[in-house]
Amino acid sequence: MTISVECFLLDPQHSGTLQSRIRQMVAEGILAGRLRPGERMPSSRRLAEHLGVSRITVTLAYADLVADDYLRARGRSGYFVSDSAPQPGDFPQPGARGTDVVDWARALGHRPASGQLNMGKPRNWREFRYPFVYGQADPELFDHANWRGCMIQALGQRDFARMTDDQFEQDDPGLLEYIARHTLPRRGILARGDEILVTLGAQNALWLTAQLLLNQRRNAGIEEPGYPGLRDILNQTRCKVTGIPVGPRGLEPDALPEGMDVLFCTPSHHCPTGATMPLEARHALLVVANARGLLVIEDDYEFEISHDRAPLPALKSLDREGRVIHIGSFSKSMFPGLRLGFLVGPAEFIREARALRATVLRHPPGLLQRAAAHFLSLGHYDAMLRRLTRAFAARRAVMLAAVRAEGLTIAGAAGDGGSSLWMRTPDGVSATELSQALRADSVLIEPGGPFFGESLGNDRCYRIAYSSITQDRIAEGIARIARRTRAMTPQGQRTSRAG
Amino acid sequence: MTISVECFLLDPQHSGTLQSRIRQMVAEGILAGRLRPGERMPSSRRLAEHLGVSRITVTLAYADLVADDYLRARGRSGYFVSDSAPQPGDFPQPGARGTDVVDWARALGHRPASGQLNMGKPRNWREFRYPFVYGQADPELFDHANWRGCMIQALGQRDFARMTDDQFEQDDPGLLEYIARHTLPRRGILARGDEILVTLGAQNALWLTAQLLLNQRRNAGIEEPGYPGLRDILNQTRCKVTGIPVGPRGLEPDALPEGMDVLFCTPSHHCPTGATMPLEARHALLVVANARGLLVIEDDYEFEISHDRAPLPALKSLDREGRVIHIGSFSKSMFPGLRLGFLVGPAEFIREARALRATVLRHPPGLLQRAAAHFLSLGHYDAMLRRLTRAFAARRAVMLAAVRAEGLTIAGAAGDGGSSLWMRTPDGVSATELSQALRADSVLIEPGGPFFGESLGNDRCYRIAYSSITQDRIAEGIARIARRTRAMTPQGQRTSRAG
Repeated sequence: MTISVECFLLDPQHSGTLQSRIRQMVAEGILAGRLRPGERMPSSRRLAEHLGVSRITVTLAYADLVADDYLRARGRSGYFVSDSAPQPGDFPQPGARGTDVVDWARALGHRPASGQLNMGKPRNWREFRYPFVYGQADPELFDHANWRGCMIQALGQRDFARMTDDQFEQDDPGLLEYIARHTLPRRGILARGDEILVTLGAQNALWLTAQLLLNQRRNAGIEEPGYPGLRDILNQTRCKVTGIPVGPRGLEPDALPEGMDVLFCTPSHHCPTGATMPLEARHALLVVANARGLLVIEDDYEFEISHDRAPLPALKSLDREGRVIHIGSFSKSMFPGLRLGFLVGPAEFIREARALRATVLRHPPGLLQRAAAHFLSLGHYDAMLRRLTRAFAARRAVMLAAVRAEGLTIAGAAGDGGSSLWMRTPDGVSATELSQALRADSVLIEPGGPFFGESLGNDRCYRIAYSSITQDRIAEGIARIARRTRAMTPQGQRTSRAG
Repeated sequence: MTISVECFLLDPQHSGTLQSRIRQMVAEGILAGRLRPGERMPSSRRLAEHLGVSRITVTLAYADLVADDYLRARGRSGYFVSDSAPQPGDFPQPGARGTDVVDWARALGHRPASGQLNMGKPRNWREFRYPFVYGQADPELFDHANWRGCMIQALGQRDFARMTDDQFEQDDPGLLEYIARHTLPRRGILARGDEILVTLGAQNALWLTAQLLLNQRRNAGIEEPGYPGLRDILNQTRCKVTGIPVGPRGLEPDALPEGMDVLFCTPSHHCPTGATMPLEARHALLVVANARGLLVIEDDYEFEISHDRAPLPALKSLDREGRVIHIGSFSKSMFPGLRLGFLVGPAEFIREARALRATVLRHPPGLLQRAAAHFLSLGHYDAMLRRLTRAFAARRAVMLAAVRAEGLTIAGAAGDGGSSLWMRTPDGVSATELSQALRADSVLIEPGGPFFGESLGNDRCYRIAYSSITQDRIAEGIARIARRTRAMTPQGQRTSRAG
């Protein structure tokens, strides 16, 4: 490959002769790793033309660089970066181009990174033999062939405008229609087109909602434990946040404190315990919400992964006062990298959410909306969900049997579907330490600390998901967790239990 | 198609017999447009099983619905929605399921929609014969075949993890490398991987930057006229905004008022006038910024569409103090629906921007990042840019000749490339009214009002882009603009000019 001549720009602030400036420019490029051993330099004629200097100046600079082994001449083929040229670091390093004098600690008005907790899923999780990781796609279950087909269809001439246009004001009509006619009716929800907004995944839907409804004078209620990403979202609005303890039947309407403006909840499957809120509790929650003028944000988390029974009607379907906002996602069961979710609420609310979305990111990419619409309307999504649900149910059964055989303790719901189990360590065993120790055994689990408010410092829970581990590895993986757990359990407790 | 049984949920709050509730459920579905003429109902056995009622109850309800012509029985094939069933509206209507009692005017803590100006590009712009619309892809110039090929490559098994994984903490390595080694060096910029963040288009990069650097105690400077989307972004931070008039050579460093914390600018091509900031002015701007501790946000708008000369080095490449943050985009020249841009700045700033991005949307879809990386690294992007630049230069020449022949007035820069011209109407002619009148002539232009602060109320400018109109239609389109303009010019002025 010849390096494009456009990659060369003379630094107008460097002093020195033209020849030395060209030399410096090339050497800096090599030292910064932008020009790599074996790559071909532009011809002296091309570079001279591009820089507006005489050809002899470039030739002399090249000769200089050859003398210092930055470049090597190969007869008529021209000049190449020398294989023995000085080595840069692994990634392009900025040259010594001045010092950063800005005080970023002062310049940054907001510091979201400092508040965020690392969820501790290593990038190389696929290299672990027993990855009980949550929220990644399983290549065995994903319908790759049909997704590819639908993408190719969406890439066709017919869909050109939907793919390329800037269309912040309107989502893909096919996707909207599918959501309105197929997805929502299964949740008992009726909605018009102007009551639905396509978002960049459920995360984006939660964020838009929080931004619109909260500020520093308002109070939000969240589940405790609960989705850590939601805490980050709420911290950004500077609202007051109250954690509401969640029991084996999900959120208890009786436990709701007074004075909240907005409540965030996951009735279908509580995140992370997996508990499902019973129908009576849903009605009771709405009675409380109506009486207190509370808005309820329903994250319809994992409703589609229900093993033993049909999902209960969504809270939104029971809402008679228009105070429930419903959030759904295709990313979770298709694949997280898709980033497609949706928001359902009153038209007035959706109009504001659309305007906010336009300011932040204009719109979710049209190509993905279109391809998802094809995948959904051709029935591939439903077929994949059925396969996925069956596989998850089988994996769950194996996991429950192994967990019981090994004497591990389930802290959350055991019978309500979903894609993970919520576990508790014995007294004296830190879930964080357990998780770290297990990496040496090629086992990945997720410590539960981030699901609790920082103040609580609970380090006794962990999550083990069965969405990305094959069925035949589950028993051995659980056995390894149990072995490490026993090894870490304080002596007295272990003996008393054995006795 | 048989309607899925899962679409049917009995409303637990409806009173009446089971039979009447089933009847109501089906009728409501038809009236709401969810069940459509010709669609097949689930068999009475399936529906009874699903609802947990006796089969005879469903059969009786179906008979009732047939009697009222909601359904039609077709012998052994079962029941279908009748072709003469009552018609719903065009879009699913929510049933009479209660009243919205929430006072949304009070409930909404923020109302972004009310501040936004409609940019007035009709959805059906492709149906206009003379679409001088800005910022849409031209199917004649877009390299559809290679984009399709790169997408198909990104859809392969090898890239499965990059497509499906949730990877908010790291962008596509191939895309990052291309940006670091090819895109930025052409702008004279050296950056490491931790100094670059992939964003959901330039809009998202601007938004992230504004959120991090501004709050209600800080002052932002913007170009006047300038990109209307930026005003929406800044309004959200509640910072103080100062408009800085832009001349024929872009932003004038001497005109910068004291007391600003952050300056947003478009040195490559000013939006919307097309002016390019000369090199000396760039240096002068940095001298002012260094002296005052000002941060500068460089939106490298349309740098790649330069007709007559190589682009000038980016402001960021001249920055010695680390106070310039650089924003680029692939969406503008590839296609707006792609939504891929990038942010370049000090690692400390980028870390915070990444955390904020994760909260708002997690990450730009991996599939699009990967496909773009292929398209870029295979050289298709550069080839397309060359073709696009040639075509735009030719269209621009035709446009300039027509504009001069018709005596229309150019308000912005005429010679600096870009994809549009910034025009001025004669005294007494409203650009808004001109734009509306021209729709009857199948001509679309963009009134310039939204580019000015609301207070100014300037209605004398408009933008005509040549990125989506074919070359052979430009002259006639301009002639129609001139004709309408003359017809709308007040009598006295027209006569005096003719005289």
